[in-house]
Amino acid sequence: MPNDPFQWDSREDCEVRQILDRIADKWSLLVMALLENRTMRFTELLKTVDGVSQRMLTVTLRQLERDGLVSRTVFPVIPPHVEYSLTDLGRSLNTTVTALVTWTESHQSDIAASRARYDEAVAG
Amino acid sequence: MPNDPFQWDSREDCEVRQILDRIADKWSLLVMALLENRTMRFTELLKTVDGVSQRMLTVTLRQLERDGLVSRTVFPVIPPHVEYSLTDLGRSLNTTVTALVTWTESHQSDIAASRARYDEAVAG
Repeated sequence: MPNDPFQWDSREDCEVRQILDRIADKWSLLVMALLENRTMRFTELLKTVDGVSQRMLTVTLRQLERDGLVSRTVFPVIPPHVEYSLTDLGRSLNTTVTALVTWTESHQSDIAASRARYDEAVAG
Repeated sequence: MPNDPFQWDSREDCEVRQILDRIADKWSLLVMALLENRTMRFTELLKTVDGVSQRMLTVTLRQLERDGLVSRTVFPVIPPHVEYSLTDLGRSLNTTVTALVTWTESHQSDIAASRARYDEAVAG
């Protein structure tokens, strides 16, 4: 982000927002964080990304593939075997994704404490 | 993120997801990236975060305040003057947020090219 966001060209700004909207999405971030470790099959992802529906995982993977962040390899066996892995572009994003997930993990108690204080102040 | 995500405790995992869902949100990220530079008033944020509605900005700021990422200072003048700035916790997240926005800015043409290829392959 430039130091003075007022200087953003508004068209470029809008594109950046639209991309951010796509990648700054909980399921996308979690899928990319998992694929950082290794190639995974659809059914493995479905089991591992707790709470995701089959349809939401399908949509998320299709968008990540369209964005060029994840690649999809189909093995022509019966039943079809489909594997997902990060592309080079996906890998370049992943340092940032991992940092965001790590930050969240290590600050979750701070956030919970802040929420409790806020809710108490609102109620009081 | 631990090396083996299968080892995540599922309750902790769920909390991390829920926090990620909150902060990995386009408006939250953009507001935090702007407040990185300086304290801002509500009306300034409304003008600068292009496309955000007054209601969505209000909700976003309230959630960021509740999470302890943004602080809100009310100056008792008429009309009331309200300023928003990052807290220390918000600052600690912002390196990551800025990295995500910067990555998006510098890779938007790669993503656009990938989308065009994908759409062409699907249509073809």
